[in-house]
Amino acid sequence: MFSVCLLLFGEQIPSFSRSFCTKPISKPIIYTHRSGRQVKARMKKLEEKMAELGENFKSKHELKTPKGTQDFGPEQMAVREKVVGIITETFKRHGAVTIDTPVFELRKVLMGKYGEEGSKLVYNLDDQDGELCSMRYDLTVPFARYLAANKIEKIKRYQIAKVYRRDQPVMTKGRFREFYQCDFDIAGPGELMMQEAECLKIADEVISKLELGEFEIRINHRLLLEAIFEASSIPSNLFKTVSSSIDKLDKIAWADVREELINEKGLNELMADSIGKFVCIGEEHPDWDNSSLFDWFCSDNLSASEEVQKSIIKAIDELKLLFNYAILFGCKDSRIVFSPSLARGLDYYTGIIYEVVMKDINFDITDVISILKKLPNKDGTSPDGISYKIIKNSYLILAPYLLDFFSNITG
Amino acid sequence: MFSVCLLLFGEQIPSFSRSFCTKPISKPIIYTHRSGRQVKARMKKLEEKMAELGENFKSKHELKTPKGTQDFGPEQMAVREKVVGIITETFKRHGAVTIDTPVFELRKVLMGKYGEEGSKLVYNLDDQDGELCSMRYDLTVPFARYLAANKIEKIKRYQIAKVYRRDQPVMTKGRFREFYQCDFDIAGPGELMMQEAECLKIADEVISKLELGEFEIRINHRLLLEAIFEASSIPSNLFKTVSSSIDKLDKIAWADVREELINEKGLNELMADSIGKFVCIGEEHPDWDNSSLFDWFCSDNLSASEEVQKSIIKAIDELKLLFNYAILFGCKDSRIVFSPSLARGLDYYTGIIYEVVMKDINFDITDVISILKKLPNKDGTSPDGISYKIIKNSYLILAPYLLDFFSNITG
Repeated sequence: MFSVCLLLFGEQIPSFSRSFCTKPISKPIIYTHRSGRQVKARMKKLEEKMAELGENFKSKHELKTPKGTQDFGPEQMAVREKVVGIITETFKRHGAVTIDTPVFELRKVLMGKYGEEGSKLVYNLDDQDGELCSMRYDLTVPFARYLAANKIEKIKRYQIAKVYRRDQPVMTKGRFREFYQCDFDIAGPGELMMQEAECLKIADEVISKLELGEFEIRINHRLLLEAIFEASSIPSNLFKTVSSSIDKLDKIAWADVREELINEKGLNELMADSIGKFVCIGEEHPDWDNSSLFDWFCSDNLSASEEVQKSIIKAIDELKLLFNYAILFGCKDSRIVFSPSLARGLDYYTGIIYEVVMKDINFDITDVISILKKLPNKDGTSPDGISYKIIKNSYLILAPYLLDFFSNITG
Repeated sequence: MFSVCLLLFGEQIPSFSRSFCTKPISKPIIYTHRSGRQVKARMKKLEEKMAELGENFKSKHELKTPKGTQDFGPEQMAVREKVVGIITETFKRHGAVTIDTPVFELRKVLMGKYGEEGSKLVYNLDDQDGELCSMRYDLTVPFARYLAANKIEKIKRYQIAKVYRRDQPVMTKGRFREFYQCDFDIAGPGELMMQEAECLKIADEVISKLELGEFEIRINHRLLLEAIFEASSIPSNLFKTVSSSIDKLDKIAWADVREELINEKGLNELMADSIGKFVCIGEEHPDWDNSSLFDWFCSDNLSASEEVQKSIIKAIDELKLLFNYAILFGCKDSRIVFSPSLARGLDYYTGIIYEVVMKDINFDITDVISILKKLPNKDGTSPDGISYKIIKNSYLILAPYLLDFFSNITG
């Protein structure tokens, strides 16, 4: 065992722009060194520690990663490099530059930015020298701080980096405490809906290139949601909770959503039926295309106040503009779908709301298990009869179809 | 302002190998979404907070990064990508695979691995849910844990990632609290000195490709140091402290080192003169090449005990083997220099010790300042008359020559 450890020079260079040494330097200076059997030495210390602790330490438990985190071996890293390569290439081709920010921030920068729930999930560092720091919860607040600190008003930047949330991890759903986010943001003024359209185009390109099968991008407008809520006389303080019920319409039937709205969210039947008329219009007319839906929302038969009608028309006009730009940019017409029930996390959607849905991923995981059960089982069998080794070796092939399990941590 | 945030799929996939959902999935599932003017919304919150705090917040101070950390803008990131690209390409060409480990580890995994001094510099996370975690201090202990947890005995791996040390930051010397390490390790058995030679070759390749000018790789053997210490009757408990004096010989004269050894380190004159005979042999004979030095150490005139003589010959034989392999691998003969006084941080060097020294970097930073002072000064002047803006714009060109300031954080 032998090691080289090179310092990443690029990390150090920028300090020059802040301040630098003015002391004369008269001799060539060492700038990198280190070798020796360092790993061996530290492995030895680990082994000594293990011996000291006896059987207690020998359990794999002691060598585990912290809750909600994981190691990535060479095979997983190969997949990650491929995926990140595709994403980076796309972001760059759209003219974005990248930045990097520290993995922790001053606590006061993060506090009050994620709501009550979010703030509870922030990892804090120990107060070891008076400066209170916390791990970044997303890349957006650090980006906002970077813009403010450097007085930058216009930038197209991407950042691909890990973020940290002290959430209850659910590995099967892909909810981890340490995970990557790949952010692309356009800061600064732009033509109405032009920047939004570019982001749609980028999502379209990335997901196409990942070759995961056919997909659609569902789109809605917060302004439209607000208008139809008002048209249904739903109190504004219920906006968020009612939205989260409405958003389930792609998974459960309207009858169930209606029941939830009345029994749990406090709407009366009149309100529920009114909002239902708006958000179910797509399901009721599966043959309608985006234009037909737009036309219906702009028609006179919605029995809404003039003001609400104006808001609806404004929202629809913006959506039309967005769709036109997206098509112009080369998005496939059939992939861009107007979805009036789409709400997602309204906390951070101030305008256009969207989500990507895979259309070809529609298999039953139990089928996969039954296939795997029939495969030769050389490398040990799990308690329920499935070779995890085989599953591990299969994941490279299965990976694209498994992405649907990992949908819960994008918020 | 508008944003796309794609989840890094590669991060999520491997969880499948551990456990997975067995619930039938009957509908296509969303796997990525998020847009909206999130940055705008969070900028707004930041601005509200700023307004709330009044003048206090408006100071740039409030938008700073934590002590010892820094942001990297697009220009700096371009340099980093270039440098990391060269390093990665070299590591891969030598057959290494990469892994990734969490940025924090269970505290018990890190404790007791870095000595008393090192342990003080470890960042701890708050005890927020009972599992005590700390930020990684290097990539070596996590690598050792990864090997033990996965029972891997043979791997050639690299890892390029940030590490964290709660050290007193010295920006001018490139000592940060958050910085990158680029580790390359060969785990597992190998021919004597073969793996060490490959690491030398990698260092040679990387530094050549970075085009920083001519350099040499200075090499020593811990076994040789131990033997000449014994030949000089230096008590073994003084090994570390005497070594750290000896190691200064590339910066200060022997007379000064000798004084330090006698007045501060507790050696008598006899011991000091004996060790001096060994470690100054290179400086006394600047015309000698590696072979002449090897021959001198193996000659009979060292007046050492038979046992010590045997150790010296063993060390020299290993060094000869290493040099032969390195030349065979294509390292330039003149770049590989046997340096009997080289000691570095003996804590982690158990065998071959080496460091890289730039030979062309021999300028006075005050010269740079005086040149910069003569440049047109458009963008504001620093207190001592130097335009930081110009320095910032110059660093891309100057960067290679500034690397020598960043030598203190490789340990």
